[in-house]
Amino acid sequence: MFLARVYVTLKPTVNDPQGLTIRGALHSLGFADVESVRAGKYLEVRLSAGDRPQAEEQLAEMCRKLLANPVIEDYRFELEEAAST
Amino acid sequence: MFLARVYVTLKPTVNDPQGLTIRGALHSLGFADVESVRAGKYLEVRLSAGDRPQAEEQLAEMCRKLLANPVIEDYRFELEEAAST
Repeated sequence: MFLARVYVTLKPTVNDPQGLTIRGALHSLGFADVESVRAGKYLEVRLSAGDRPQAEEQLAEMCRKLLANPVIEDYRFELEEAAST
Repeated sequence: MFLARVYVTLKPTVNDPQGLTIRGALHSLGFADVESVRAGKYLEVRLSAGDRPQAEEQLAEMCRKLLANPVIEDYRFELEEAAST
């Protein structure tokens, strides 16, 4: 059993209205030191792949096909062995 | 200048319909090894706090007040020094 932590972020050149809105809200709350906010997604995926290379391959394919939009988003993931639940 | 990476996740006991939907979609695409998916948020916050303790204090307050809902979500963050942009 593997636990994958997947991070999906907008590419640096892509406009991020959600991040801008969060920054505006933080400024309204008095956090004037905030320069910028970029919003992304964080996913924890548990999968029962046989071994690590197989898990990595499957995850990369999941990211390309569903979890991220490769046109505007970057992704990265970390894999760790996890106890079965 | 500090770069904070903020991770907001649902508490383990809280139902996660978004994660269940993603798991269903992955199964439909043929990824039968996926056992569970939990969806969360990932934020990159740049802030110009004076020093690290001050930045940590501000970030914890931002998380409690806006970025996370402490009733149903957990948060954690990592701070690193970043070059000014």
